[in-house]
Amino acid sequence: MADVWDAYREELEGVEDQLRKNLDSNVALVNTVASHILSSGGKRLRPLLLLLCARVCGYSAKEHLVLGSLVEYIHTATLLHDDVVDDADLRRGRQTARKLWGNQISILVGDYLYSKAICQIVGFRNQAINEALSEACRKMAEGEVLQLYYNGNPLITETEYLRIVEHKTAGLIAAACRIGGIIGGAPADKEAVLFRFGQHLGIAFQVADDTLDYAANGDRLGKSLGQDLRQGKVTLPLLHLLHHCSDQDRQMIKDRMETRTLAEADLLRIISLMQEFGSISYAMERARTFVAAANRDLGGFEDSLPKRALSVVADYMVTRDR
Amino acid sequence: MADVWDAYREELEGVEDQLRKNLDSNVALVNTVASHILSSGGKRLRPLLLLLCARVCGYSAKEHLVLGSLVEYIHTATLLHDDVVDDADLRRGRQTARKLWGNQISILVGDYLYSKAICQIVGFRNQAINEALSEACRKMAEGEVLQLYYNGNPLITETEYLRIVEHKTAGLIAAACRIGGIIGGAPADKEAVLFRFGQHLGIAFQVADDTLDYAANGDRLGKSLGQDLRQGKVTLPLLHLLHHCSDQDRQMIKDRMETRTLAEADLLRIISLMQEFGSISYAMERARTFVAAANRDLGGFEDSLPKRALSVVADYMVTRDR
Repeated sequence: MADVWDAYREELEGVEDQLRKNLDSNVALVNTVASHILSSGGKRLRPLLLLLCARVCGYSAKEHLVLGSLVEYIHTATLLHDDVVDDADLRRGRQTARKLWGNQISILVGDYLYSKAICQIVGFRNQAINEALSEACRKMAEGEVLQLYYNGNPLITETEYLRIVEHKTAGLIAAACRIGGIIGGAPADKEAVLFRFGQHLGIAFQVADDTLDYAANGDRLGKSLGQDLRQGKVTLPLLHLLHHCSDQDRQMIKDRMETRTLAEADLLRIISLMQEFGSISYAMERARTFVAAANRDLGGFEDSLPKRALSVVADYMVTRDR
Repeated sequence: MADVWDAYREELEGVEDQLRKNLDSNVALVNTVASHILSSGGKRLRPLLLLLCARVCGYSAKEHLVLGSLVEYIHTATLLHDDVVDDADLRRGRQTARKLWGNQISILVGDYLYSKAICQIVGFRNQAINEALSEACRKMAEGEVLQLYYNGNPLITETEYLRIVEHKTAGLIAAACRIGGIIGGAPADKEAVLFRFGQHLGIAFQVADDTLDYAANGDRLGKSLGQDLRQGKVTLPLLHLLHHCSDQDRQMIKDRMETRTLAEADLLRIISLMQEFGSISYAMERARTFVAAANRDLGGFEDSLPKRALSVVADYMVTRDR
C-alpha cells in the first residue's frame, strides 16, 4: 500500500490543496472547525478510489481533484455528526470537534460541509454525478438511523448488520468509484461494475474496522478497544460470539451493553471468548470474502497501474492496522 | 390571509399528499419521526410561496406540488437540527422530536430528510433548481453557525443581525420563490425579482418573529415569551433596547444572557423598557420596511389573483400573531 500512496502522492496533494482552497466560508469559525477535522489524519481513501477508478478508465484530466475533495467533505460532514451521535471525545487520537467546540458547532459545521459539497457538485452540471452522490447521502443517513434503531439489540441478524454496513459505509465509497467511472467516460456496464467494486470494498472496510475493534494489539487495549460494545453497537465478531457462547456469557455481554460499561476485565474476557470461538477470524474471513468479490469485479478491466493499485487498496482493507 | 388559504386549499392539500407519500424510507423510525414534526402545524409558507410565484408567471402544471414538498422537507430538516442546537423541548406547543426520541435521532432524521430532498430535486434534472436549492442550503448552514458564533454577544450590530437573518431564514424562502419562477418559465430578470421578493419577505418574517418573542399577549407570557433571550440570541428589539437603556439595565440584560436565566419579573421589566424606548415598534417598523420592499418587487407583474395573494402573504408577515 505504501507504493500506492507513493505513486499517487502528487495527485493526493492536489486533493489536499482543494480541501483547503474550498474552505472559504465568510464565517471564520466554519473554516477553523472544518480544518481541524480535515487535518486529523484521514487516509483520503475515497478521493484515492475516485482517482484510481477514473484512471482505470483512461481518464487523464484534473476534475478528480475537486470531485475527490467534495466526496471527502461529505465524508467529513458525516464524521462530525457521528461524533455527536456517539458522544465521542477522541477521533484518531485527537480531541473531536464536539469536545473542543461543542455539539452545536459540530452539527452545524457538518451541515455546512455537506451543503457546500452539494453546491459545488451541482456546479459540475453532470446529472450522473448528482445522482450518484445524492443517492449515497440518502443511503448513509438511512444507515445511520438503522444503526441507532438496532443499537443495543443483540438479536440483530447478520443480514441486518450487513445492510447497515452497506448503507452507512459502502454507499459513499461506491459512489466515489462510480464518479471515477463517470468522469473516465466508462460505458454504463463498466460504471455499474465500478460501483459494485466500491460496495464490496466498502463492506470489507467496515467489517474489518468492526473486527479490529476487538483485535488486541498491546497498546490499543483499554480505552481504544471495545468502543463499539461501549456504544451498544452489535458488530459481526460480537454477533458471532453471541451465537456461540454460553448463556451465562451471553447474559454478561447483554448486561454490559445495557449499562454501557465495560471494565477491562470484561473486555479481556470477551476477546478471549472471541478467540476461543473463532469470532474474530470468522469476521475477518467474511471481510476477505468481500475483498475477493471486489477483486473479481476488476476482472473485466485491462491490466494497468491503476488497476493493480485498486487491487492493492482492496487487499489493504483487511491487512491494515486500524 | 384566510382567503388565500381558502383559495389555494386544494393545492396545499396536494402538497400534504406529497409530504406523506415521499416519506417512504425502509426504516420505519425515519417515517415516524419525520411524520411527527411534519404534522405539527407548520403553515407551509414555503410551498405556498413557490406555488404563487409559479402561478404569477402563468404556470398551470403540477410540478410545484412535489417541489413545494421538497422545500418543506429541507425546512423540516433544519427545524430538527435547530431544536437540538437550541435544546428545545417544545415546538408549536408539542414536544419536539429530540425530546421524544433523543438528539441522536433528531440529527440523523434531519440528515435523512435533507438528503432525501436533494435526491428527489436532482431527479428533476433542472440545473437552475439544483443551484437555487443547494445555494440556499449552504447559506442556511452558514447563517446558523453565524448565529451561534454571535450567541450571547450584546455588541452585535444591526447589520450583522440582518446578515444572520438573511442567511438562516430568507435564503430558503427566496429559493422557494425563485423555483416558482423557474418552473413558471420566468425570464431571468423576473426570476431575480421573485428571488429578491422572497428575500425581503423572508427577512420581514424573521424580524417580525423575533419581535413577537417580546410582544406580550396575555397567555403567552411566562414560558413562551422571551425564548430568544433565554437562548442568548440577540435580536432586533433587544438590540434597540441595549442601545437606548441605562447602563444599569444594560448590565442586568447582559447578566441574564450570560446566566441563561430569565425570571418572569426580569422579562416583564425588559418588555416594559422595550415599550418605553419604542424597541418593539422600531423592530416592527423595520419588518414593515422589508414588507414594503417585497410589495414593490411585485410591481412589474400584471394584476392577477396570485399576485394579490403574494401581496397578502407579504403583509401577513407583520400582521400575524406568532
